[in-house]
Amino acid sequence: MEQLTPTQRTTIKRIPKRGNYEYETVYKILDEGLVCHVGFVVDNQPFVIPTAYGRIEDKLYIHGSPASRMLRSLQGGIQVCLTVTLIDGLVLARSAFHHSMNYRSVVIFGTAEVVSDPEEKLQALYAFTEHVIPGRWEEVRQPNQNELAGTLVLALPLLEASAKVRTGAPLDDEADYSLPVWAGEIPLRVVADKPINDSRLQPGIVPPPHVQNYNRQKK
Amino acid sequence: MEQLTPTQRTTIKRIPKRGNYEYETVYKILDEGLVCHVGFVVDNQPFVIPTAYGRIEDKLYIHGSPASRMLRSLQGGIQVCLTVTLIDGLVLARSAFHHSMNYRSVVIFGTAEVVSDPEEKLQALYAFTEHVIPGRWEEVRQPNQNELAGTLVLALPLLEASAKVRTGAPLDDEADYSLPVWAGEIPLRVVADKPINDSRLQPGIVPPPHVQNYNRQKK
Repeated sequence: MEQLTPTQRTTIKRIPKRGNYEYETVYKILDEGLVCHVGFVVDNQPFVIPTAYGRIEDKLYIHGSPASRMLRSLQGGIQVCLTVTLIDGLVLARSAFHHSMNYRSVVIFGTAEVVSDPEEKLQALYAFTEHVIPGRWEEVRQPNQNELAGTLVLALPLLEASAKVRTGAPLDDEADYSLPVWAGEIPLRVVADKPINDSRLQPGIVPPPHVQNYNRQKK
Repeated sequence: MEQLTPTQRTTIKRIPKRGNYEYETVYKILDEGLVCHVGFVVDNQPFVIPTAYGRIEDKLYIHGSPASRMLRSLQGGIQVCLTVTLIDGLVLARSAFHHSMNYRSVVIFGTAEVVSDPEEKLQALYAFTEHVIPGRWEEVRQPNQNELAGTLVLALPLLEASAKVRTGAPLDDEADYSLPVWAGEIPLRVVADKPINDSRLQPGIVPPPHVQNYNRQKK
């Protein structure tokens, strides 16, 4: 299986057995997440900003207004740390100390580049929309020239990245297994409720299958 | 209603009407989230690490092993940016450009301090457990001296913080409202599935109400 090469920054030091450097694992986590947290530094001050994203092969795209402080900072080529976290469950041990969570996370380091090629920019916006809700792009009005010009798209290469994954049961101290305390896992997942119609829908318009059957399914 | 004072760092510049500086709003978001993303800088390199947390009044607590790079870095008093993000729904417009998400986020700036007072440390661990799953602390074995010594707890004051909130329907270009495209919102929420028993439970132990009825309810 194809692997990322761990670097000093991406080597998992705390509980190394949770570390994973396979492209497949990293991509699956990125494709299931909806929002990433982008970390960057301005005047020694860290900022962590949540934002949506899309992926095409080994590039992760973020976008927004050219007026965004985050995007303006990043396009200067400064160091970025971008993190995606999925919470899969609560891990309930017999002692407070051994409580944990099951999760899958990806951390990416690197520098972002402005996407100026119009074709790549449009593909990135396609990937962006389809990442959030597959099947949407073909049904909506696609970006016009003004909108394309008014959108700044940045690409972060998936070169220096690692995943960290915890699964399964709690791990208690041996002596605690005799305690009369319930222990185990509460699985958590994101579900979609019934779609809410916009108040200005044209007559006869009903939610299409990509909306009606929306499912942020775990893979 | 009691308000935080916006600073240069916490003033919402992009779409200011989404900014909120009320303690009540900030606290509700923090109390519903499970994981925060902690941003800090080491040698000009930003790191963004997901971690659980707890809150007591105007202090946010994080904790972990004294060997954690994150905690070792933060206890030096460096600048921190801590972000909590809740995704409430997908906002589906008639144009690709106007797609959005409904979300609630909090960004906190400051420096963290080591909690060395044993009483405050224990209270922080209590808040930490009860934040994740109310009712749990009283049912489990509480920390012993070794575990307390082996846990580093840091406090971040909620002095410089702001919330950002988007709710409601998409906002389309006026001309697009005549398009035969479904638009609206897909609400998203986190649900708990049936608890999974640990394989080494004592005979007759069943999930208690705080597990059986677990609900990361939106408030």
